[in-house]
Amino acid sequence: MRIGVLTGGGDCPGLNAVIRAVTKSLLLKCDATVIGFEEGFLGMIEGRSRELDLVALKGILARGGTILGTHNKANPFNHYLAGGADVSDQLVENYHRLKLDGVVVIGGDGTMSIAHRLSEKGVKCVGVPKTIDNDLMHTDRTFGFDTAVAVATEAVDRLQTTGESHSRVMILETMGRYAGWLALHSGLAGGADVILVPELPFDVEEVARVCRKRKKRQRFTMIVVAEGATMLDGEQVVRERIDDSPDPIRLGGVGNLLAEKLKPLVDSEIRTTILGHIQRGGTPTAFDRVLSTAFGAHAASLVAGGRWGRMVALQNGQMTSVEIAEVADQTRLVPVDSLLVHAAAAVGTSFGRADFEVDLSRMPQNRVI
Amino acid sequence: MRIGVLTGGGDCPGLNAVIRAVTKSLLLKCDATVIGFEEGFLGMIEGRSRELDLVALKGILARGGTILGTHNKANPFNHYLAGGADVSDQLVENYHRLKLDGVVVIGGDGTMSIAHRLSEKGVKCVGVPKTIDNDLMHTDRTFGFDTAVAVATEAVDRLQTTGESHSRVMILETMGRYAGWLALHSGLAGGADVILVPELPFDVEEVARVCRKRKKRQRFTMIVVAEGATMLDGEQVVRERIDDSPDPIRLGGVGNLLAEKLKPLVDSEIRTTILGHIQRGGTPTAFDRVLSTAFGAHAASLVAGGRWGRMVALQNGQMTSVEIAEVADQTRLVPVDSLLVHAAAAVGTSFGRADFEVDLSRMPQNRVI
Amino acid sequence: MRIGVLTGGGDCPGLNAVIRAVTKSLLLKCDATVIGFEEGFLGMIEGRSRELDLVALKGILARGGTILGTHNKANPFNHYLAGGADVSDQLVENYHRLKLDGVVVIGGDGTMSIAHRLSEKGVKCVGVPKTIDNDLMHTDRTFGFDTAVAVATEAVDRLQTTGESHSRVMILETMGRYAGWLALHSGLAGGADVILVPELPFDVEEVARVCRKRKKRQRFTMIVVAEGATMLDGEQVVRERIDDSPDPIRLGGVGNLLAEKLKPLVDSEIRTTILGHIQRGGTPTAFDRVLSTAFGAHAASLVAGGRWGRMVALQNGQMTSVEIAEVADQTRLVPVDSLLVHAAAAVGTSFGRADFEVDLSRMPQNRVI
Amino acid sequence: MRIGVLTGGGDCPGLNAVIRAVTKSLLLKCDATVIGFEEGFLGMIEGRSRELDLVALKGILARGGTILGTHNKANPFNHYLAGGADVSDQLVENYHRLKLDGVVVIGGDGTMSIAHRLSEKGVKCVGVPKTIDNDLMHTDRTFGFDTAVAVATEAVDRLQTTGESHSRVMILETMGRYAGWLALHSGLAGGADVILVPELPFDVEEVARVCRKRKKRQRFTMIVVAEGATMLDGEQVVRERIDDSPDPIRLGGVGNLLAEKLKPLVDSEIRTTILGHIQRGGTPTAFDRVLSTAFGAHAASLVAGGRWGRMVALQNGQMTSVEIAEVADQTRLVPVDSLLVHAAAAVGTSFGRADFEVDLSRMPQNRVI
Repeated sequence: MRIGVLTGGGDCPGLNAVIRAVTKSLLLKCDATVIGFEEGFLGMIEGRSRELDLVALKGILARGGTILGTHNKANPFNHYLAGGADVSDQLVENYHRLKLDGVVVIGGDGTMSIAHRLSEKGVKCVGVPKTIDNDLMHTDRTFGFDTAVAVATEAVDRLQTTGESHSRVMILETMGRYAGWLALHSGLAGGADVILVPELPFDVEEVARVCRKRKKRQRFTMIVVAEGATMLDGEQVVRERIDDSPDPIRLGGVGNLLAEKLKPLVDSEIRTTILGHIQRGGTPTAFDRVLSTAFGAHAASLVAGGRWGRMVALQNGQMTSVEIAEVADQTRLVPVDSLLVHAAAAVGTSFGRADFEVDLSRMPQNRVI
Repeated sequence: MRIGVLTGGGDCPGLNAVIRAVTKSLLLKCDATVIGFEEGFLGMIEGRSRELDLVALKGILARGGTILGTHNKANPFNHYLAGGADVSDQLVENYHRLKLDGVVVIGGDGTMSIAHRLSEKGVKCVGVPKTIDNDLMHTDRTFGFDTAVAVATEAVDRLQTTGESHSRVMILETMGRYAGWLALHSGLAGGADVILVPELPFDVEEVARVCRKRKKRQRFTMIVVAEGATMLDGEQVVRERIDDSPDPIRLGGVGNLLAEKLKPLVDSEIRTTILGHIQRGGTPTAFDRVLSTAFGAHAASLVAGGRWGRMVALQNGQMTSVEIAEVADQTRLVPVDSLLVHAAAAVGTSFGRADFEVDLSRMPQNRVI
Repeated sequence: MRIGVLTGGGDCPGLNAVIRAVTKSLLLKCDATVIGFEEGFLGMIEGRSRELDLVALKGILARGGTILGTHNKANPFNHYLAGGADVSDQLVENYHRLKLDGVVVIGGDGTMSIAHRLSEKGVKCVGVPKTIDNDLMHTDRTFGFDTAVAVATEAVDRLQTTGESHSRVMILETMGRYAGWLALHSGLAGGADVILVPELPFDVEEVARVCRKRKKRQRFTMIVVAEGATMLDGEQVVRERIDDSPDPIRLGGVGNLLAEKLKPLVDSEIRTTILGHIQRGGTPTAFDRVLSTAFGAHAASLVAGGRWGRMVALQNGQMTSVEIAEVADQTRLVPVDSLLVHAAAAVGTSFGRADFEVDLSRMPQNRVI
Repeated sequence: MRIGVLTGGGDCPGLNAVIRAVTKSLLLKCDATVIGFEEGFLGMIEGRSRELDLVALKGILARGGTILGTHNKANPFNHYLAGGADVSDQLVENYHRLKLDGVVVIGGDGTMSIAHRLSEKGVKCVGVPKTIDNDLMHTDRTFGFDTAVAVATEAVDRLQTTGESHSRVMILETMGRYAGWLALHSGLAGGADVILVPELPFDVEEVARVCRKRKKRQRFTMIVVAEGATMLDGEQVVRERIDDSPDPIRLGGVGNLLAEKLKPLVDSEIRTTILGHIQRGGTPTAFDRVLSTAFGAHAASLVAGGRWGRMVALQNGQMTSVEIAEVADQTRLVPVDSLLVHAAAAVGTSFGRADFEVDLSRMPQNRVI
């Protein structure tokens, strides 16, 4: 059996752990030959690949990034290097030239959509879900998220002590363009006073009220805001700020905008930190290494069982799989009525909304992990 | 409303986070008075308690241990200080003297059994499950476990580099007297070559075979062994070693025994490390802080809803609760046919059993988290 | 004996460790009474202080920030709250009202200048040097610096893996408005390809040349740039960018400017991260805790010996002290001919200067720590 | 120019960083060919070596251990594999066969003695000092020590919270067979109540007195003891315990002995943790990566300058070098009258000696780093 493997989209801690698990499982238990494509679909288009043996996998379990490299814009059906041309036939040709029996594609919803269209052209695929934002449909968790939460939480911990020493308003902007999972988890873990997520557009005046109230009690304020959080009355402003920029990190988006808006409303110094790409890199947490290994081994199992067209998924704590087709381009948002949101509110966290209420006696019991 | 709170049994990262979440939720959303008992049931027996206000909770979210203190041997029905006498009436008296409406008990199966018997004497209880070993029935995860896994995994990472430099056989003994969760997760996360758990009694000769085979390929061997792992033909020996000792950490139990048995069978130097209490202490991971906060807020919710006699539980990734009575003194073992065990085997990990086989094409799909 | 203690200027990991060492030493070995002033000189002006006993010091050794609080703008000789008025007499009055025998002031050059002027008004002072940038004269090291280096290095480590996966140009902006110590140490520790420091104005074209050359060899480029780094031909531009802003972190200063200038000169994606206040906060490294304790105990020793007017200092690895007067408002820059700079160049690091040469056979042997 | 490089003795975090700096400097600035010997002198005896190019060095800066491997017992003048025979001629032969101009040996005092004897046989050597214990003469610091201190300090931090929760006596045994540097620094950094080092034989009764006194004040006790610490009246006992054992880690040496002796003297539970090899492995701290790079680049500079027979050294914070001959088999002990020891005592740390006094007003001002 000859199987290809590639990583697509933005990088993420745990990619190497998945590559290792997929490849080791296929090498050791199926006697397969595994071919790694360089820079995601780009390598499959341009025919850049190398065989992966045990030596190539040595020591990568704990290493961040992807030894195969990845590429954000390599869409074979709309290729940026070919002026948006459809070069998928070229990719399929390489697939056959290498006599592959199938490919394991590790990536996000974009990657899965491509995989779905490729399978319609005869390229057999098994998918492994990947998103630092944990916002992919049909899987409760994706690897890399726990690491991003750990990095963001350490940042909150550090900002807490400096904020307290200077009784300032500290703002940390985390990733999360569409979903607030990362801000919610790191805000909870770091004990933030205010957590702002895209799912709950916030009221700047309410955020300022919290800061002023705390200041009166000689307390500083720690705010964690998701990159995609928006204001009740200013959605466009923020989106603009973010989408105008070739690199959101450069402008800093909502974190700096929030500071700007808060400035006239509070009597404290304000400091903003944009975590940016630090959340994407580095060695994965133990949790993510275990999850990545489970995802990878299960993907290899789907391959071994000839269950093509399916994507590994974690549902209700169980490992399972879904049709790649199903994943489409959807986003899994934070349910505003989820226990974590209510738990945060119960311990006094503000979501920047005066109207957000919690009835402790009837809190929801749904999803936590 | 007046509510007591106590922590029982061995300490665990996240206890303070639970205390904080329970107390803050009750103070902020129920206007309750919260009384903390010192050293678990001992403080409740001896009437040692103090009121917990917001100031008392400042900065404890990220702190390890328990600000209330805990005690392993304080069983009111069999009190070690009173020569095993039943002093539960004294405890109940203190409960009434303080005019409590109920108590939130944070602890393991032992603590829950006591809570159950106390409720039969009119002491209203809500339970929060706690075990560093993650081996409590009816809940898929307990706080503290992720932190212990992180600590053990960092140890494996460090031992890997020194083992490789000297091409030695490195043995790391983790906690896990009855269940192998900690050894399995940290072994997987650290990429151990051999993982030995109580659920799969191991064959020393097979472990030695793995070491020799690797040595031939100029590879060292990393072994992670759970404190309670036993040999196919030597169960008693190990148990003795552990149970004889007033403090298992002192003798080192199975880690050193394994080294002793391997020595004549391999031609490499062997080094053993016993992680011991380091796994119990220190700041909890972000994951555990989130889980602890969710557990605590949910426990407060049960109190607010008057749902006494129930223990918070995480099932299939959902927050729910079960009858304290149900928890009894049972242990949740690692299912030998679980995906994680097979995933470990699939990537080449040995469980010290020549007879352990994996059919990649029909791997189980059950529990992962 | 009655001694006051305060922390001035920006906060820094290790402040609490110094407070602890000063206070414990004086309490235990001199039977002194120690009074802590809140928010630096502001508390001394407004008479806000509290007695520090052993309980107040519990658990602060490893905690970031300062339990006393600090203030950047509280200069008694030019008081921002009194429109720049000289309120030093008020401060002196509080000093006498509290019957103090002297004050231990922990802070940077600004704080030391104030201490010097106060001593001329009869306020006896002993100083402890503090600067996250490690740029204070007369002391080779200051606490907090090692922690900032550790935080920045972890960021470089994380950016390395994500930069490599996407073969991008990654820019990390560290603190260091006037001196490049932090960028130099974290760049060396993280294996940066380019390190830009204020002491060596850089040539953008040369930086771009390095990026292009590496790109040709399929290598990405990691750049660490100090907040105060300037361009050979553009010093003003950068200074402006920084000094215009009420908060340099907001604009991101040189990190983003560099990305802007590099963009047209390289054919790689560029990503910038501004570390900001994360470098100031959080638990100090073991190294900083030891240094802080040594500084604090030695300051207490100066007090006990009645050696007023002196500041603790570390010179050639030895603990000693200098006249506070001497410290004035000077900055200790990175010697361009120091071994660390040449060691960095020897292993291939570029300083953004085509003209920077290293003769390995005659490398300088000076300062390393 | 053709230069060999090898790592001898026990491994240590930073070895790879030194190998990288030595090799990169020689490759980039001297156009040299660099040959790495496998497993220290063993590879030089058996002629096992490989050329080191830039690719071989990729990503090793932050990796623990040594990519060349090392060996404790490979002494060419007394070779364990040849029944203690002198095989040095064989080594010299390989040296000439490879047409080497010299060798950079990275190791401890044992390695330096061998290097010295080899240079008398015409093998040109430059040395780089290495010892996890920081106890080598003529250099104030060695790489790896800061990392070991960091690891041990994290262990103390974790044990503090669990010790406090159970009000136990916690004992941590660190490395340090002959010198107490590691126990002193990690004890100081972790805020240990008792620090026991070989340089100050301790009195068990005094240690017990401290524990009892603290217990009375509801405080637990944290003890950090160096592997080689000895009792005033029991030196032999301890040495025996350690030297009898094929692997000190197995018996746990003084940590367990101390627990045994304390047990009847205190009324608290006692727990011992033996850190063992975790202190040797894993990624080096930023401090150690900088120091290793400085050491390596300076060693390359000595080679380039033809300054054979010298060992890199750090003296008074300055990089310099000494005659390899001088290093001999000496050990650098902790000066009992050093500032760090007195600083520890000043903040209330006990060294297990009733007779140890500190006069705060006349504390020594010597070495800190």
